[in-house]
Amino acid sequence: MRAPRGLAGRLCYGGDYNPEQWPEDVWREDVALMRQCGVNLVTVGVFAWSRLEPREGEYEFGWLDRVLDLLHDGGIRVSLATPTASPPPWFTFAYPDALPETASGVRLRHGSRDTYCASAPAYQEACRRVASVLAQRYADHPALALWHVHNEYGTWCHCGHVAASFRRWLRDRYGSLDALNEAWTTSFWSQHYADWEHILPPRATQYLANPSQLLDFRRFVSDELLTRFVEQRDILKASTPDVPVTTNFALGPWVPVNQWRWAREVDIVAIDHYPSSGDSLGAEEETAFAADLARGFAGGAPWLVMEQAPHHITVRGRMRPKSPGQLARLSLSYVARGSVGAMFFQWRASRGGAEMFHSAMVPHAGPATRAFAEVAAFGTELSRLSERVATAFAGQASGGFASRVAAGVALVWDPESWWALQGPGLPAPDLDYWAAVRSVHASAWRIGVTVDVVAPGADLSHYRVVLVPCLFLADQSAAGAVETVVRQGGHAVVWYLSGVAGTDGRVHPGGYPGPFRDLLGLQVEQHVPLPEGVSVALSTGGSGSLWSELLHLRGATVVATYADGDLAGEPAITRHAVAGGVAWYVATHLDDAARDALLGGVFRAANVPVEPGAGGGVELVRRRNGTVFAINHTSREAQLPLCGMDVLTGSVANGELWLGPGRAAVVAPAS
Amino acid sequence: MRAPRGLAGRLCYGGDYNPEQWPEDVWREDVALMRQCGVNLVTVGVFAWSRLEPREGEYEFGWLDRVLDLLHDGGIRVSLATPTASPPPWFTFAYPDALPETASGVRLRHGSRDTYCASAPAYQEACRRVASVLAQRYADHPALALWHVHNEYGTWCHCGHVAASFRRWLRDRYGSLDALNEAWTTSFWSQHYADWEHILPPRATQYLANPSQLLDFRRFVSDELLTRFVEQRDILKASTPDVPVTTNFALGPWVPVNQWRWAREVDIVAIDHYPSSGDSLGAEEETAFAADLARGFAGGAPWLVMEQAPHHITVRGRMRPKSPGQLARLSLSYVARGSVGAMFFQWRASRGGAEMFHSAMVPHAGPATRAFAEVAAFGTELSRLSERVATAFAGQASGGFASRVAAGVALVWDPESWWALQGPGLPAPDLDYWAAVRSVHASAWRIGVTVDVVAPGADLSHYRVVLVPCLFLADQSAAGAVETVVRQGGHAVVWYLSGVAGTDGRVHPGGYPGPFRDLLGLQVEQHVPLPEGVSVALSTGGSGSLWSELLHLRGATVVATYADGDLAGEPAITRHAVAGGVAWYVATHLDDAARDALLGGVFRAANVPVEPGAGGGVELVRRRNGTVFAINHTSREAQLPLCGMDVLTGSVANGELWLGPGRAAVVAPAS
Amino acid sequence: MRAPRGLAGRLCYGGDYNPEQWPEDVWREDVALMRQCGVNLVTVGVFAWSRLEPREGEYEFGWLDRVLDLLHDGGIRVSLATPTASPPPWFTFAYPDALPETASGVRLRHGSRDTYCASAPAYQEACRRVASVLAQRYADHPALALWHVHNEYGTWCHCGHVAASFRRWLRDRYGSLDALNEAWTTSFWSQHYADWEHILPPRATQYLANPSQLLDFRRFVSDELLTRFVEQRDILKASTPDVPVTTNFALGPWVPVNQWRWAREVDIVAIDHYPSSGDSLGAEEETAFAADLARGFAGGAPWLVMEQAPHHITVRGRMRPKSPGQLARLSLSYVARGSVGAMFFQWRASRGGAEMFHSAMVPHAGPATRAFAEVAAFGTELSRLSERVATAFAGQASGGFASRVAAGVALVWDPESWWALQGPGLPAPDLDYWAAVRSVHASAWRIGVTVDVVAPGADLSHYRVVLVPCLFLADQSAAGAVETVVRQGGHAVVWYLSGVAGTDGRVHPGGYPGPFRDLLGLQVEQHVPLPEGVSVALSTGGSGSLWSELLHLRGATVVATYADGDLAGEPAITRHAVAGGVAWYVATHLDDAARDALLGGVFRAANVPVEPGAGGGVELVRRRNGTVFAINHTSREAQLPLCGMDVLTGSVANGELWLGPGRAAVVAPAS
Repeated sequence: MRAPRGLAGRLCYGGDYNPEQWPEDVWREDVALMRQCGVNLVTVGVFAWSRLEPREGEYEFGWLDRVLDLLHDGGIRVSLATPTASPPPWFTFAYPDALPETASGVRLRHGSRDTYCASAPAYQEACRRVASVLAQRYADHPALALWHVHNEYGTWCHCGHVAASFRRWLRDRYGSLDALNEAWTTSFWSQHYADWEHILPPRATQYLANPSQLLDFRRFVSDELLTRFVEQRDILKASTPDVPVTTNFALGPWVPVNQWRWAREVDIVAIDHYPSSGDSLGAEEETAFAADLARGFAGGAPWLVMEQAPHHITVRGRMRPKSPGQLARLSLSYVARGSVGAMFFQWRASRGGAEMFHSAMVPHAGPATRAFAEVAAFGTELSRLSERVATAFAGQASGGFASRVAAGVALVWDPESWWALQGPGLPAPDLDYWAAVRSVHASAWRIGVTVDVVAPGADLSHYRVVLVPCLFLADQSAAGAVETVVRQGGHAVVWYLSGVAGTDGRVHPGGYPGPFRDLLGLQVEQHVPLPEGVSVALSTGGSGSLWSELLHLRGATVVATYADGDLAGEPAITRHAVAGGVAWYVATHLDDAARDALLGGVFRAANVPVEPGAGGGVELVRRRNGTVFAINHTSREAQLPLCGMDVLTGSVANGELWLGPGRAAVVAPAS
Repeated sequence: MRAPRGLAGRLCYGGDYNPEQWPEDVWREDVALMRQCGVNLVTVGVFAWSRLEPREGEYEFGWLDRVLDLLHDGGIRVSLATPTASPPPWFTFAYPDALPETASGVRLRHGSRDTYCASAPAYQEACRRVASVLAQRYADHPALALWHVHNEYGTWCHCGHVAASFRRWLRDRYGSLDALNEAWTTSFWSQHYADWEHILPPRATQYLANPSQLLDFRRFVSDELLTRFVEQRDILKASTPDVPVTTNFALGPWVPVNQWRWAREVDIVAIDHYPSSGDSLGAEEETAFAADLARGFAGGAPWLVMEQAPHHITVRGRMRPKSPGQLARLSLSYVARGSVGAMFFQWRASRGGAEMFHSAMVPHAGPATRAFAEVAAFGTELSRLSERVATAFAGQASGGFASRVAAGVALVWDPESWWALQGPGLPAPDLDYWAAVRSVHASAWRIGVTVDVVAPGADLSHYRVVLVPCLFLADQSAAGAVETVVRQGGHAVVWYLSGVAGTDGRVHPGGYPGPFRDLLGLQVEQHVPLPEGVSVALSTGGSGSLWSELLHLRGATVVATYADGDLAGEPAITRHAVAGGVAWYVATHLDDAARDALLGGVFRAANVPVEPGAGGGVELVRRRNGTVFAINHTSREAQLPLCGMDVLTGSVANGELWLGPGRAAVVAPAS
Repeated sequence: MRAPRGLAGRLCYGGDYNPEQWPEDVWREDVALMRQCGVNLVTVGVFAWSRLEPREGEYEFGWLDRVLDLLHDGGIRVSLATPTASPPPWFTFAYPDALPETASGVRLRHGSRDTYCASAPAYQEACRRVASVLAQRYADHPALALWHVHNEYGTWCHCGHVAASFRRWLRDRYGSLDALNEAWTTSFWSQHYADWEHILPPRATQYLANPSQLLDFRRFVSDELLTRFVEQRDILKASTPDVPVTTNFALGPWVPVNQWRWAREVDIVAIDHYPSSGDSLGAEEETAFAADLARGFAGGAPWLVMEQAPHHITVRGRMRPKSPGQLARLSLSYVARGSVGAMFFQWRASRGGAEMFHSAMVPHAGPATRAFAEVAAFGTELSRLSERVATAFAGQASGGFASRVAAGVALVWDPESWWALQGPGLPAPDLDYWAAVRSVHASAWRIGVTVDVVAPGADLSHYRVVLVPCLFLADQSAAGAVETVVRQGGHAVVWYLSGVAGTDGRVHPGGYPGPFRDLLGLQVEQHVPLPEGVSVALSTGGSGSLWSELLHLRGATVVATYADGDLAGEPAITRHAVAGGVAWYVATHLDDAARDALLGGVFRAANVPVEPGAGGGVELVRRRNGTVFAINHTSREAQLPLCGMDVLTGSVANGELWLGPGRAAVVAPAS
């Protein structure tokens, strides 16, 4: 009789395990060390294609068999990867047309990873073959807990295979050439297409590219890669219907996938997350944002942080070691926000290769180190948490880690607006959607309010506040979802640059912010980017930078005006009362204090609960079952008015929990 | 009987009109709005090739017929463009060898604009064909006022077609390989050519390229593009001998054409001008410079500003809105300096495409905007000016806008020196010819002296002062023209780096500044570039930066020495009295105040008239018939000792004209 | 009867002479001017291939015959170059496969210099042919003193020829694919090679390249170029066994050769040196470093500075003129440190070409200049020095310039560690091996201690102190050589990042610094790169920046701890007493004062002699025969307690030599 499959039951702890880099005698030490620190899940085989299939059609599974057996014997479950993110050298020689081409026509060669064209038939065929072979061989292996397809989907290619596939995608999207010509405004600069065959991926060209072509190409890349994922997923599912399948989403500006579309196709959302903020508490807020994003992708369901660097944060290429306890606090922050565990890249630091200095659970200096001690200590803590929560909520359907995070505020996140704001010909060269959204998230984080990240157009009817930073691409459905909140008596805060264009990338006629005009009670006549380094004072104190706009009010009232600069006296922040709710517009990039003050007022007005004691580096996240995760990221003791049992320590708080510097608690409500 | 053709009679007002981007119902609104704001000329069809010839040899003229008829019915004349600046997608597929190649051999593809090789036979043939078809169809259309060939000629290619054409050009220039080898100093680095066929355009190479090859290639590109223009012009002229033909010159460091050569071939000089200065009054001075340049190209004759951005100035990629009234003031500055109107890109803001955020006469928010109100107000003002000037000077041959700008100072401008100072291996990596010339022009502008921009070697006998900033390439004829001014009792001011090399790019033997040595009475032994950010004090106060030189005086006397630095005590500014005139040499980049003081002194000594009240942001330009354009770019009222009637307002000034902040006047002399 | 060949006897003075750039009447003036300023050696023909062989197989030697005869008649010896650094245009057309390809596959074209692939058979064949022809024609020319093969070997190519040759080199190095796969850690990212034919040079790839592949490719490039040198050398030697053969080593981060391996193959080490330091005394220290490096390459034997710029130092692309006397002082510094002369690029400034502004012995302004006067004055001084030293040490075997520089301190220099620290995936993006070594050398220079530069693993038994900055790649032999110094009672100072990896680029297991752990008595657990611009205070005063490390002491004692920052209280500098000697470890980049203090103490403890009066810009270098070169680079008079005769002036010092600002002396011991 087969053991139950999947991840249910315990919080996961572990990381990428690449035994192929080590002699077999190291493997036994690995398993012993894993057990010592509570590792219960490892990802195996992500980059093992050249070891599994050293020559085309010749497979060597013996080593992997032994690895999986060893792990199983040690009680460690396996997330088994298909190795398709990095074809072996032989593949690139056998199928040179399956190598990627840059926009300039440079054919990339083997020597790193990810060297393939996802639209090349030979690559697709090879992926299906290797996934099938793995599925057949390991379907019944008792260690198998999860299928991990590929790695961080996100490669680009501009070759002829891609051109053909892009054209098919465009035909599906537009139906007719006339529709495409209209959507792409090909009447500008004589780009009218008379034949589908004339359409290309965006390749090196003389001057600015067509922004709609760029935008659609990014959408195509996302969908094309998703098709590749689905092909493998379906092969794996056919062999093991009971084993969940996922892939690890990468986050960051280079990633050409729209996770909202992908999330529907995975059994559990998984993210790799490498924060890059070097300033005080930046990595903490960035971690919370990534976790909220992942939970959003998952629609509120549990998800998993699949990779993080155990011991460092890379800031502008510099690996900055985490401070003592930071590994535990950041990991717990993911868990608080819905992750069913904490995984790392990688288990043991490599001796060579391009990531040999990437920190690992077992560092180069071995296990007799502070670094490994942190890994072991947190593993133990996580294991205890896992057991106690299971006990505390035994038998409760909404209990334990299945209980969802409670949030009354929604934050709209739209990768397509991000892409559009990376296009050519914008009013300013440094528009940064990611930074704009992060600044809004950070305000809520500092205030101590947990937000749900949502897709544009999602159902927002159960939120009291919706935050809409710089939603450049917005059609009526996105605006309608926001309006619903206001019409129900809630608050919407919309930032500059929202609603400028429709989802086809074309400017809405009649003035910005297009479909938000009526809701906000105003029209934007002109964008007024502020010069670099210049800020303008506001009448209410505080300041704006980066951007401003010339507004005409059509029902909205002025909250703040510019106190100086070219727009002195013109409105900078407005409010529009609509049907019991309020729609706010913020036409400039507020400084942090001003934004915190504005949002703090909105949250109060909307009766959004703020956890007492939260904010300012003390992170509190409440689950619907009443459990509160409390993490003190500061170097001061925090006093929290919580009641219940801290399941980490077993101590009971009766309205006053003292949380030491750097310490955490998970308080279950008194039953 | 046909109406008179061309632009004579009225000041032009309008812009690029791209009706192909809009449904026909918008066209009627367009014409109504144009009439509302005094538009009388629009440029049509610049990027319409793919709409006019959607498939090779298949033409669709109906829409253009209707547009021209509508405009004509509205009393609006048309500058009809040939669309050859952007071949349609089908062209690039039918003739892949007509696509441009970068110096690295990357073949550029369709997807922007300007994707063609001007040396490719297929492109040349297609251009002639489309120009012929347009010429035949619209020769008799009553709206046709001007032919506008192509757009901003300025593309580069390095392909085999270009190589062959470059070789033909070099054969014409040099006659023999020996002459080319000598001029290019191919004895350096073993570059001696034994066969014409071995000569290439400057392609990607291992290290520094041959600077003479680079220089000649830029000359070739200019001439090759000019040949393309002349081919089209002659086709158009054959159909409509009475319609003037022009093309719009782009200005800026990327432009590979020598406008001095092109200006001879157009019926009216037209420029596109996009100032990029963000600092105080920078755009105003830059506008005056561009206008003086255009008037120079035109030999003092009327010219036309064909494109400007109505509502913004782009500074380092950031679109900074113009201040209230700035559209009018800058436009009037062009007119004051000889433009026969003010044209914009473009009429109506596009909904899509790479320039959808480029400001337009009708903005995205429509005509009920401040922006459109400025367009309409200035159109009305310009129309009034046009009529009143016509009345005031009725019957006077030299009256009205035909009267030329009066200037006693010449400023030498040489695009080839600019190109040479962008070459490899120079003594400093940041030599900036454009900035150097602009700094000299700006001094005259601040002082209130209007200068004529002239080509090196031009007849300067009617000037009292000639300014020669950094004329790196100079042969005896250029120096002789300068000497003429001095020998007639005038003043010449020559700046560092002048006369270093001949027009072949080779250093003059015997010490810098080559052909200017005798006139200036000195020899430069050594260039002494100053470190970044370092300035040296001068004995007379003020300072120099960027550059200095070790001089040996051979007749010149010292005006100022360096007060500190490596050259302390050595001469920085010298004067040499020759035959009643004076030749000055300035060996460093003076700070603005020091340059203003020096030139102010020179102008006084040379009896160059300065308009009282001019300078410091109050712009006064005098025509030979006595009309004075006065534009107050400042925020202070200006008092001007002018006599005559302000034709803008009809008020009469008797020696005291008060000009409010931001206001302008055009004062015709009392008759 | 033939005259003696080679360089023996006199100090060399001269430079690159390119008569092919000038008409023959200039040649006679050249020789006269050379004689006037004491030139006795010129390098001829470096870039003359296209003049010597204007068409394949057709040679024109007449002009070179006349040049050599003229020089010989003038008493000037010739360093005759093979011209293979720049094939003629015809070569690149005849053999397009011999053109270099970039990593992106861009085929570079003629138009600069160095446009060839060193692995292309056609190029190799052409080089052998032209070297043979030259060897045969000029073997007996009496002016021939030295063969100068090629110029600054250092070109890269990534083409198919290179791939084939790289594979052969790898087969030689590794023997088996298994060994290569192990050394390159190809198990990472699925890079396992199943066939030699699948290995490529590092070409454009999707993401980070394999660092071991990069490192081996740099080694291959060095060896491949060396093979080319040896081929030519052997041809020349076969014709003229008595004429020394060399090539000029370039220095700088772009240079892909390991001079330690090359130095064994040349008859005399020659370097080209272009300091690039703009700050105070930077060029002086950089000159001393280059000279110490060259002497190190030569194993302490005499060497020659073959190129320097006579009159300028290029700092970030800006040519900064040398100060008065600096030409002489820097030249004398090379001589003091073992150069048998002072050579320049080039004799006469070119009128055209990419280096026309490179300063020359005869500047554009001709010989009646300060610049030429400096050249002539130093030539006279050098000639006098040469004669007087010959006289002073007549008959002494170890006398004169054959006497070696005396140094008790060794500084380890390893180009392969430099290369490895330029690889991908390092803990910080701005690790700068060159800067780290220079900082250590500069401390010794400021203190007044002359150091010998040595290769890792060299015999160090005669040194009292060995300095080991950032020796990233180190195996047991390198560590053993250092340990020898300590076990003999000397001192070793090892800096951070040393011993991290073996020479195969793989991290040593068990913690950094690998093979130095026992000697230093410590283990490094974790790298802690410091943020840009941040420094941490040390307990002993002073500060560290750039880098720090978490140490575990295993016998070492603490010298200094961090006083603040993430590692506050942890050791920053340690000492470990071993067998009478001391091994120091410095885990951070000390500020200059702290490093000077540390090394000053180490030198004192190790009884390394410091010349009284040396340091702080007064450079004193002692030869083993007691001669002391004293160069005052400062603007203050220096008092030096020296005894003996200044052979430059003939004056005698009895324990007190006053050296004026900018002056130099060469004091021979009283006999």
